[in-house]
Amino acid sequence: MLIVQKYGGTSVGTLERIDEVAKRVAKSKKNCDKLVVVVSAMSGVTNELIDFAHHFSKNPSGREMDMLLSSGERVTSSLLAIALNEMGLKAVAFSGRNAGIITDDVYTKARIEHIDTTNINKALDEGYIVVVAGFQGIDKMGNVTTLGRGGSDLSAVALAGALDADLCEIYTDVDGVYTTDPRIEPKAKKLDKISYEEMLELASLGAKVLQNRSVELAKKLNVKLVTRSSFNENEGTIITKEENMEQALVSGIALDKNQARVTLRNIDDKPGIAAEIFGTLANENINVDMIIQNVGVDGATNLGFTVPENELDLATDAMKKVLGANANIETDSAVVKVSVVGVGMKSHSGVASAAFKALANENINIQMISTSEIKISVIVHEKYGELAVRVLHEVYKLDV
Amino acid sequence: MLIVQKYGGTSVGTLERIDEVAKRVAKSKKNCDKLVVVVSAMSGVTNELIDFAHHFSKNPSGREMDMLLSSGERVTSSLLAIALNEMGLKAVAFSGRNAGIITDDVYTKARIEHIDTTNINKALDEGYIVVVAGFQGIDKMGNVTTLGRGGSDLSAVALAGALDADLCEIYTDVDGVYTTDPRIEPKAKKLDKISYEEMLELASLGAKVLQNRSVELAKKLNVKLVTRSSFNENEGTIITKEENMEQALVSGIALDKNQARVTLRNIDDKPGIAAEIFGTLANENINVDMIIQNVGVDGATNLGFTVPENELDLATDAMKKVLGANANIETDSAVVKVSVVGVGMKSHSGVASAAFKALANENINIQMISTSEIKISVIVHEKYGELAVRVLHEVYKLDV
Repeated sequence: MLIVQKYGGTSVGTLERIDEVAKRVAKSKKNCDKLVVVVSAMSGVTNELIDFAHHFSKNPSGREMDMLLSSGERVTSSLLAIALNEMGLKAVAFSGRNAGIITDDVYTKARIEHIDTTNINKALDEGYIVVVAGFQGIDKMGNVTTLGRGGSDLSAVALAGALDADLCEIYTDVDGVYTTDPRIEPKAKKLDKISYEEMLELASLGAKVLQNRSVELAKKLNVKLVTRSSFNENEGTIITKEENMEQALVSGIALDKNQARVTLRNIDDKPGIAAEIFGTLANENINVDMIIQNVGVDGATNLGFTVPENELDLATDAMKKVLGANANIETDSAVVKVSVVGVGMKSHSGVASAAFKALANENINIQMISTSEIKISVIVHEKYGELAVRVLHEVYKLDV
Repeated sequence: MLIVQKYGGTSVGTLERIDEVAKRVAKSKKNCDKLVVVVSAMSGVTNELIDFAHHFSKNPSGREMDMLLSSGERVTSSLLAIALNEMGLKAVAFSGRNAGIITDDVYTKARIEHIDTTNINKALDEGYIVVVAGFQGIDKMGNVTTLGRGGSDLSAVALAGALDADLCEIYTDVDGVYTTDPRIEPKAKKLDKISYEEMLELASLGAKVLQNRSVELAKKLNVKLVTRSSFNENEGTIITKEENMEQALVSGIALDKNQARVTLRNIDDKPGIAAEIFGTLANENINVDMIIQNVGVDGATNLGFTVPENELDLATDAMKKVLGANANIETDSAVVKVSVVGVGMKSHSGVASAAFKALANENINIQMISTSEIKISVIVHEKYGELAVRVLHEVYKLDV
């Protein structure tokens, strides 16, 4: 049995928290012969180092930033290894380099290219708990790189894949994945299991337990994930392949408030106009989500799409470039996106219509709709966001 | 022209201090085409990390301590490189590993075995200022090692030697080496030059500008050192080969308060007794300094020696082991050592007698004397320490 555990910044946020993590690791070691522990920087450290760098430069060199930021995780891994040694356990601290994590050289957001597991396997075979500094690797030239925000999750998943681990446990300060945000619907329940695909939809829609990059990598490498809290003994949520699970009709309801709607009225319906519009937005790195195109009664085309609210100004400027300063561009940032996610939708009809009916019963007007195999998303006025979540949570009986 | 500069912890103690160091480095770069800058951790950081480790263990693993402690210098080197970049200068931050510093694997006090200058020379040839994280290297297995207290000075001197630098500048918060401690004798003057040998005697006797290991290495590698302050523009003190200097009769007077005297009376004058006594002290790692042996009127032998005051209890216990619990062991920690140091003594007679006469004129009783080619040391009661320093400072006209 080989397990990779990852402890996030709040889990190792103080020396006392590291004591608690050491106890948990010691307990885990009793039940598995090989244990790799990936740690984040103590909470606040990375932001402090970024502030330090910004004292000197608004746009510091990526290579130097990575050498700077990688130090936070090195401190935590050393301290945890020292704590485990003191408990009589064999433990060794590994930097990203020691762990064999080779990345490209896109500093501050490097991608893992390869993991050379020689060192880790040798240490595991010798009975050591290997404590790896997360979030970091080295490029082919031997320079330190970092993997971007949430990078320690990526380190853990990639190591679990490379080591063919039985399980990858992601410890945070929340108990797992819930049917919806418990602050909106107190009846929300923690899910025992969820598929990678559902998790991807829920994560991108606001459930901030795990970054999408990590879930995608876990799916690609077929790594069985568990996300759970390091602050209690509750069982977490297993994230795994769909085929391993009893298929729930609907797993969860997500609310995304960072949404704005853009409507372009009476645009010329000439060939290539959509390509020009969305090409321009893509060039500006604006993330377009839903798109609706329809032809008005007078034959002119209306085009609507949503973008993240904080990119709305950028999107408006981009549209003026394409359509001219006097174009008819309507924007509305008083909207939210509510999504119903569930792999069971694939094989059940009527899931979408139940949602539409329930929202209509509450007089919630649906402004836009988009669906995928496992997701139904609607754009509604922001004042109805929380209500829509609660209504849908009840319709699909997620509270029982 | 290739210069290696080293900035200590107080010189880079705050972000604002790093700004000042960046300005100084930029100015230096105008006058030399190749510049390597070695930095310490920001003052307080190393001690904080040690405290962190001691939260978990009184005796943490050396390997993990080195990974932990090395992070402090990595942070400073990254920040300084970022600051230099922002000023429009090409600069790159190197860890000990990047700088090619290969050590043995005696963690927390490793010795530099070899420096592979390939990376540094390449960066220097490309016009980069190379900012090296001091105090650290790697062993042959690729584990991070640290060089012990004052290790950043060692990094700088070793790099200066390996790169055949024209000069190695050690920046601290003091102006250089003084004829004696200015807090004792306000007339003390900064020395323009001093030989390695004199510096070694002064350092071991209390002038804490540079650690002896660094001076010894500079002497071995024939590295010309300058020690000066990063807080002002004053010229510092050059530490170099004796032959390059006009020989001063006496360069400085040092006071060492960490002294205690042990006297063993009426010990059996059997063969090997001295070897047994000093062998036992050596085994306990007690640093014996002066030794006096004489035969009393009754034919019994008296043996006196000095040890650091904080090792006196250990020395007393060791003596009881050798001589028995009832042995006649006198101890006196109310003593200090005053030393007169100067390469000119080699070729001038009467230096020692001038000292003895001056002390006698002030009724200062000399308890023990030891001399070397370039040093005269006397043990006196601690109440006379400062007076003895001032008297000797005046006798050798060090204030003019």
